[in-house]
Order: sequence, then structure tokens, then C-alpha cells
Amino acid sequence: MRESLSASSERVELRQSLRSQLLGLLETSQFEAAKSILSPAQPADIADVIESLPSHLQVVAFRLLSKNEAIQVYEHLESPYQEALLKDFKHPDVLEIFDQISPDDRARLLDELPAKVVRQLFQRLSPEERQATSLLLGYPPETAGRIMTPEYISLKEEWNVQQALERIRELATQIETIYVLYVTDDSRRLTGTLSLRDLVTAEPERLIREIMTAKAVAARTDTDQEETARIIQRYDFLAVPVVDVENRLVGIVTVDDVLDVLEEEATEDIYAAGGVQSQGDDYFSSNLMTVARKRVVWLFVLLITNTLTSGVIHSQEDVLAQVIALAAFIPLLIDAGGNVGAQSSTVVIRGLNTENIGPEQVFSIIRKEGLAGILLGVMLGAVVTVWAYLLQGDGLVAVTVGLSLFCISVLAALAGAGLPFLFKRMNLDPALMSAPFITTAVDVLGVAIYLGIARALLGVGEA
Amino acid sequence: MRESLSASSERVELRQSLRSQLLGLLETSQFEAAKSILSPAQPADIADVIESLPSHLQVVAFRLLSKNEAIQVYEHLESPYQEALLKDFKHPDVLEIFDQISPDDRARLLDELPAKVVRQLFQRLSPEERQATSLLLGYPPETAGRIMTPEYISLKEEWNVQQALERIRELATQIETIYVLYVTDDSRRLTGTLSLRDLVTAEPERLIREIMTAKAVAARTDTDQEETARIIQRYDFLAVPVVDVENRLVGIVTVDDVLDVLEEEATEDIYAAGGVQSQGDDYFSSNLMTVARKRVVWLFVLLITNTLTSGVIHSQEDVLAQVIALAAFIPLLIDAGGNVGAQSSTVVIRGLNTENIGPEQVFSIIRKEGLAGILLGVMLGAVVTVWAYLLQGDGLVAVTVGLSLFCISVLAALAGAGLPFLFKRMNLDPALMSAPFITTAVDVLGVAIYLGIARALLGVGEA
Repeated sequence: MRESLSASSERVELRQSLRSQLLGLLETSQFEAAKSILSPAQPADIADVIESLPSHLQVVAFRLLSKNEAIQVYEHLESPYQEALLKDFKHPDVLEIFDQISPDDRARLLDELPAKVVRQLFQRLSPEERQATSLLLGYPPETAGRIMTPEYISLKEEWNVQQALERIRELATQIETIYVLYVTDDSRRLTGTLSLRDLVTAEPERLIREIMTAKAVAARTDTDQEETARIIQRYDFLAVPVVDVENRLVGIVTVDDVLDVLEEEATEDIYAAGGVQSQGDDYFSSNLMTVARKRVVWLFVLLITNTLTSGVIHSQEDVLAQVIALAAFIPLLIDAGGNVGAQSSTVVIRGLNTENIGPEQVFSIIRKEGLAGILLGVMLGAVVTVWAYLLQGDGLVAVTVGLSLFCISVLAALAGAGLPFLFKRMNLDPALMSAPFITTAVDVLGVAIYLGIARALLGVGEA
Repeated sequence: MRESLSASSERVELRQSLRSQLLGLLETSQFEAAKSILSPAQPADIADVIESLPSHLQVVAFRLLSKNEAIQVYEHLESPYQEALLKDFKHPDVLEIFDQISPDDRARLLDELPAKVVRQLFQRLSPEERQATSLLLGYPPETAGRIMTPEYISLKEEWNVQQALERIRELATQIETIYVLYVTDDSRRLTGTLSLRDLVTAEPERLIREIMTAKAVAARTDTDQEETARIIQRYDFLAVPVVDVENRLVGIVTVDDVLDVLEEEATEDIYAAGGVQSQGDDYFSSNLMTVARKRVVWLFVLLITNTLTSGVIHSQEDVLAQVIALAAFIPLLIDAGGNVGAQSSTVVIRGLNTENIGPEQVFSIIRKEGLAGILLGVMLGAVVTVWAYLLQGDGLVAVTVGLSLFCISVLAALAGAGLPFLFKRMNLDPALMSAPFITTAVDVLGVAIYLGIARALLGVGEA
């Protein structure tokens, strides 16, 4: 069994076989054997397996873990399962585990529990853990203060390397990361950082002051979690220190949390682009009414847009009535326009969100997208003109359609590139705000352009 | 200046002031002063500042850096700037830096250079770096083999902690990470892993065999880069070992690279949802024709869908001609349907891509989305019926519109939830494939449903 577990399918199979073995052993009460198959597995895998067990066996399986394993497995459980185990919190084991998980994981869990349960749990926490947790819960959600851990190793400038290494050895078992170290003065102000690597490669007698990096990059407690993540990503850090307004070190955010933050933010952006409101990743635990409520607002916003479009068409019905052939191309025109607009806004919104586009690039990007709109409009317009002629056999209708598509493409590209900048400037989320306005611009103006051109070219509607 | 740099705006200001100071000093040839303002800055910031300098000063600024700084800064430069500096590669300094950057960064850069330049550069690499780089370039793009670094620390099972720590101290300055350590046997097969923390907290006399984790989670050289990233994310690793088919350790992928991989994959998914083809993050360096080429394929695919829709409308023109009022609601129906479908597919595609949805959930999710479609369809249909009646004053037309919207919502939700599973099963990218097919289903079938209901309810079209 000294094989490493490589491909994803192998890992899935491993979990499935672990699950079925464990289930068999638990149902026949062979607890020692169950213990021995759990202990070589990874905490994340054990958590998955426990979640998949029938609920009366989840607690049983969890109790088989050693205390250290239990803490790690608990941190990997999804919050409904964490809650379910806590319901059992008259049991001293579970309470002890709750006391020992990282303060940031605990704060996240407490956020989701009913206030009454939170109060009861708080009373049972050890005083120092209670303090650490209250500290985190005092910061607004989605800030560095909320996702940081108040556990880190701090050193003093006047220590030497030897002393620092001893200090690390003492704390190594309790602290989340020992690879990044922070130097503070007597009032806990952050004066520098260094890595365990710097210590390991330095002469034992050298002072921390001499080998530390003095100008530390830090987040503030109120720095947005996504921005905090971007600091770690930009500088290839393993953790970033979090300071308060007086530059006192209050915690650190580690790279493993940042992976989850960036994924959560990407999901939010993707959901926003798809018209789904997201607050946290709870689609799978939320019921049908919640799912519907989160979508219906957006649908009604777009419905208003569409009623405007219908209104425009309704007011120009005389044109359609005279040349009914025009009606067949309305979906094509607004869909194609919508697509061109979506392409431009996708690139701009993603660039703004990943900080690859700065506000100073507004004109160069609108220009580039406008030119792309012209180019795409010419190609699409030409093809559609030919196709419309083949379908209807009316040259003027075909030219009307092609020319309209060209105008709509340019309009859509400009709106798609420009509106996200506008919303960013107004401090609104471009991912959320852009789509309805782009759709409105393209649909309402698009139909108006189309019927306007028809009126002019075909000479209809002069009642 | 012992302040830490917290908010994003402060960091931007810092870079701007660094840039203007540096520019002033370089233009007046005060090189020593320029050196001294560069040396306390972070490599990522120096890279940004160098990129913003006029091109003739970029090389000058780069040359001011110490060799170690230069290597780190070089790794942070965008590839066009890396190339520009390499053009200068007759200069021995630049070549030496190219020899010393990480093999994975070098492989990424060589990918983008013309073949002739790559050949010349290869000849000038030191034999071992040449070998390391060829190794990486031998694996397909976007695999663990391609993004790994072949530099890692391997230990032997029979060593004790003391010996291992000495080995690490020797290698610490040359190796990308010293915090995760790998245990291999005599044929380089991976037998276990441990962390520097495990070593630091263990008794000096204990054997590696006793303290290592024997069942190592590993990626294979051909594991997809996104899957490799998900392993690190799932297990909260700092790095994951990469093994070949015979379980021999060939490299490691570190968490900092994984942050970039996950961001790149999220961008790809977002672009795909927005109908933009993406290969790498080169929007800002690519010219207009490339931008247009990457979008036009998608637009033509959707145009074909739309020609089908137009065809349906064209074939049913008799209905529209008799009740022209119906035309006003076509954009509303297909847009609302498209939105409902996009919401369902967004949630399912994101779930599949982040591995939060497994293939076994296909029926429960289609059921949930189908019910959401019914619920949303009832709400939208009711509102639209009222509104259509207010606009047109015709009860039967209003009912036709409302009933059609209900049917289209259900259809769209089912297509949006089901098609991504289908494409996943066919090993096609659901993010790329779903939208055109959902649009086709909603538009073509939607219009057919609408005009069919109209024919039935309004009793028109019986020519």
C-alpha cells in the first residue's frame, strides 16, 4: 500500500472503498478495526466519508478519531455537519474540539448558527478562545479581520536566530503556520517579517533586526477579503499580516484560506454574470423558495427592459404590419447584439475584478472594443444580409437587417466596454450592474434602430 | 518609514512614487541612488515599475539590481518584457539570470518565444538547467508535468531528523520551497511526505521513516493543471508531489502557482460563459484582428441558432400577419427564457467545474431546477399576462403570452440544468458547449411554442 494516489478517479475510488469498509465495520460494531482504517487517511477525505454516512453513524465515526484527527476533520466538514455534531455538545469531547479548532474556522461556523446556540457555545469556550473568537466576529464579513487567524509567531528585533528558533520549536505544535514570522515592537506594532527559511540559513548569532525585511506588506483589518487574497497572490506569500489602524499586528491570513476566498469571489462573479444572486455557497443546502427568490429579482429587472422593447415594437406596429417579413429578424438582431455586448463586458469586467485593468485604461479599451464592434459588425452584417435575402428574397429588407446589425454591434461593443467602467467608478459592482443596462441599450435602442432604418429605407409607415 | 503598507491605494501610490523617483534618477544617471531606492522594494513592485519605464530605461534599471533581486524581479515580469530583456542576451548578466530562474517559469517563457530564439537560448543554458527545462517542455501544456518545478528536497527513510535538517540547511538557498519534504527510495519512488514543521518538532534522533506520512497524495505528470490545483486546495497543502507512471518523484507544484492556475481557469470559465474564446491571458497584448477572430466563431454559432429562429417565425408569418400584436412579445419571451436557462446552467456548470456537483446528482438537480422553472414560470407568466393585457387590451393575446412564458421557463430551466451534465459526460467542456444549445432550445422551441399556442388559442392561421 505504499503507492501514491494520483488521478482524481483513484482518489474518488479510495473514498468510496473507505466508506463501504467503514460502514460495514460500524454496523457490526467493530470499532477498533474502524479506527485503524481511518487513521492513515487524509482529514479532508475522512470528512467526506463521514458526511456520506447515515446520520446516526456520523457521530459514532467522529468519536473514533483521536483528538488531533478530530480537530482537523471537523475543520474540513461542511457547516451543516459541523452544526449537527455541535447539537451533541452536551458531550465534553465535542466541546473540547470546538474549543481547539482555529478561531477563523470557529468564527465562520458561529456566523451560521442560531443566536441562542452561539450564546450557549460562547459560555463554554475557554476564556482565551472566547476572546480570540469575539475579536474576529467584531469585524465585518468579507474583511481581512474576519478571515484572519489571531494565532501567529511574533519575534523581537533584539533576539538572535538561535533564540528565535527555540521560540518556534516551543510554539510549533499549536500555531497554524510557522513558516512566516512577524517582528513586533513593545506595543505590538509590526516592524518586519521574515521566513523560517531566512532563519534556517542565517548564522545562529545574528540578530533578527539584521535579517528581517523591514518594510512589511500588510492588510488592514478592514481590507476587503478579495484584496487581501490579491496581496498574497501578487507577492507569492504564504501569509499576509493583518494590522489595525495603529499598525498593531492582530492576525494573519494564510494562503490556504485565500484559495477559498478567490474561488468564492470567482463563483460570485460567475453567478452575477449568469443572473444568480449569491451569498455564500449554499445552493445545495437551500430550499426551492430561496433558490427562486434569489433569481426572480433579476428576472423582473430584465422583464422591465423587455417591456420597454415590447413598447417600442408596439408603437411601431404599423411598420411591421406593412412589411411583416421584418418580424422574423427581431430575435436575431437583439440576440447577436446581446452577444457582442456580453463579450466586451466579460473581458472588461474580468479585467477590472482581477485588477488587470486600471481605471486609466478606460479610453484605450473603449476604443479597442469599439473597433472590434465595427469589425464584427461588418462580418455579421454582411453574412446576415446575404442570408436574409435568401430567406425572403427582398433586397431592401435584407439590407435593412444587415445595416441594423452593424449599428447594433457597434452600439453593443461600446456599451459593453463602457458601462463596467462607469459602474466601477460609481462604486457599484460592474459584474452585477452591467448586464441589465447593456441588455436595455441593445434591445430597446436596437429595435428602435431597426425599425427606424426600415422606415427610412423601405419608405413605410408614413400613415 | 517603518510603516506597513496596508490599503491597496497606498500600495499603488508607493509604486507611482517609486516610479517617478527612479525615472528622475535614471535620466540624470544617478545610478547609486537609484539602486538604493530599489533595494527595499518587493520584487513584484519593482517588476511593475520597470514595466512602466520608457523602454530604453528598462534594461538600465534591470541591470542595477543585484543578481538575486534580478532573478526574482525577472520572474514577476510579464512575458513581453521578459522577451525584450532576453533580446539583449548577448549580455552575460541576462543569460545568467535566465539560467537561474525557476525551470517552470523558464518553460512558460520559452513556450511564447519564436523557435529560433528558443534554440539559441537552449544552447547557452547550463547542462543541468537545460535538462530540467526540456523535461518540463516534454509534457503537454496545462498538465502537472508542465507547471511543476523539478527542484525539491528529497530525504531518505533511514536518515534521522538531525541529518535531514542539515541537508535542508545546505539546500535552503537554492530550492523553491523547503517547507514540504519528500521521502524517496533508491529508485526515486515516492514513499512518503513530511513538513519542515514535523522535523522541527521531532526529537533529533528519530528516523524519517517513523515521522513521515506514508500514504502520499500525489498528482501524475499528466494530471490536468486544474485538478492538480484542486488537490492542493482540498488538502490545504503548500505543494503537491508529481510522480510519473512508475510512481517516481519528478517534481512538485507549489501553492503560489496554483493560485494563478485557479485564476486562469476561472477566467476561462467566465470568458466561456461570455462567449469569448480564451487561450492564456493575452487580451491586452493581442491585436484587434486576434480579438475579433476569438469572438467571431461564437457569434456565427449563435447566428445559426438565430437563423433557425427566424426560419420558424418566417414559416409562421401567417399567424403574425393576422395578429400583429403578437410580434411585440417575441423579444420578451426569448430573452426571459434565455435568462432562466442561463441561471440554471450557471449554477450547474460552476458546480461541475469546482467539483461541488458530482455526476450522481444529475437527477436531483434537474428535478430541483425543473421545479424552480415552474415556480419562476408561474410568477413571470402571471406578471406578463397582466402587463400584456394593459399594453394591448386583448385578453386572449395576453393569456397566450403568459402561458408561453410559463412553458418556456420550464423548458429553459430543464435544458439549463440537463445539458451541462450531458456535455460533461461526453467529455466536452460544459462551460463552452452549453450556451449555444440552451439558446437554440429556448429560442427555436420557444418561438414554436408561442406561435403554436397562438394558433390554438386565437384560432388563427387556418388558411
